[in-house]
Amino acid sequence: MKVERRPAATLYPVPVVLVTSADQDGKTNIITIAWTGVACSQPPMVTIAIRPNRYSHELISRSRELVVNIPTADQLKMVDYCGMVSGRDVDKFRGTGFTPLPASRVGPPLIKECPVNLECVVRHILPLGSHDLFVAEIVASHADEEVLDENGRVDPKRARPLAYSSQQKYWSVGMDIGTYGISRKN
Amino acid sequence: MKVERRPAATLYPVPVVLVTSADQDGKTNIITIAWTGVACSQPPMVTIAIRPNRYSHELISRSRELVVNIPTADQLKMVDYCGMVSGRDVDKFRGTGFTPLPASRVGPPLIKECPVNLECVVRHILPLGSHDLFVAEIVASHADEEVLDENGRVDPKRARPLAYSSQQKYWSVGMDIGTYGISRKN
Repeated sequence: MKVERRPAATLYPVPVVLVTSADQDGKTNIITIAWTGVACSQPPMVTIAIRPNRYSHELISRSRELVVNIPTADQLKMVDYCGMVSGRDVDKFRGTGFTPLPASRVGPPLIKECPVNLECVVRHILPLGSHDLFVAEIVASHADEEVLDENGRVDPKRARPLAYSSQQKYWSVGMDIGTYGISRKN
Repeated sequence: MKVERRPAATLYPVPVVLVTSADQDGKTNIITIAWTGVACSQPPMVTIAIRPNRYSHELISRSRELVVNIPTADQLKMVDYCGMVSGRDVDKFRGTGFTPLPASRVGPPLIKECPVNLECVVRHILPLGSHDLFVAEIVASHADEEVLDENGRVDPKRARPLAYSSQQKYWSVGMDIGTYGISRKN
């Protein structure tokens, strides 16, 4: 039976990413973001929702640059940690042991240990309420060779990403259950 | 080793939802959307990216209302079908066998067979390129009792959603591997 519930952001499963940012002196930060999605295919764009009081909000609003790093399920503890502490108080690269790598088109660093890294330039900032929505164009993209399939596309079986749900739980990705167009074949 | 790749919307895993819309005469449509994400917690808002040539784009631009219906993995063939045919040519409720239910706050119907339904009002439309981004506030929310946990939250283990990846593959959700705050406990 359907029950009506208090309106809430009940969308699942959503991706979990680590967004890196930097100030003008090269001081870096990492924030964990699950409020993210694809906004456009051509040019490729993603959305990143950040609370205005977060340190990353300040850094990204100023530089208008960020890197989306997609972690693996093995990195769960570091991912959770980056969402619980503030970059105003701690150096999260030091706290996690992650290695910063220079990006090719933007100031913030890639996280070496994350198998996919998307360098982004912010095109729009939309204040919505608890969060501001950053709409960012992907201007450069990197991946570990090991997570690519024979066609050069990222294979989630190899990249083993995290997902998140509104119970505040982290999930692994399960089985490949079909390919786009499956309804035509049956 | 990191390889640099052509910039693309490589974010994974992303949710797969069925968005319902309606015209002023009550003619309805369903479109499959993976380019969606959470935009804000308070008020709860989601993003939905739609190509301007899609029939749903026309309906939603006019009415500024939509319902996000979250399907189960068992509904894969219907989900795929709704992404492959146009509502200009076919009645997708008839084509899928899904049952429309009246929404409480908006014109488009809920899909009865989807365990979670989010009624939305569009607050912003951002033209980005191949897609326009609809930023929509969730004004009413419904769920099947069977998918709620003991705290009344949607449990992905019971709701068994679909995820999508840039290989154009559909995925099931795997295991619960931790709860937000896990890094503090260890």
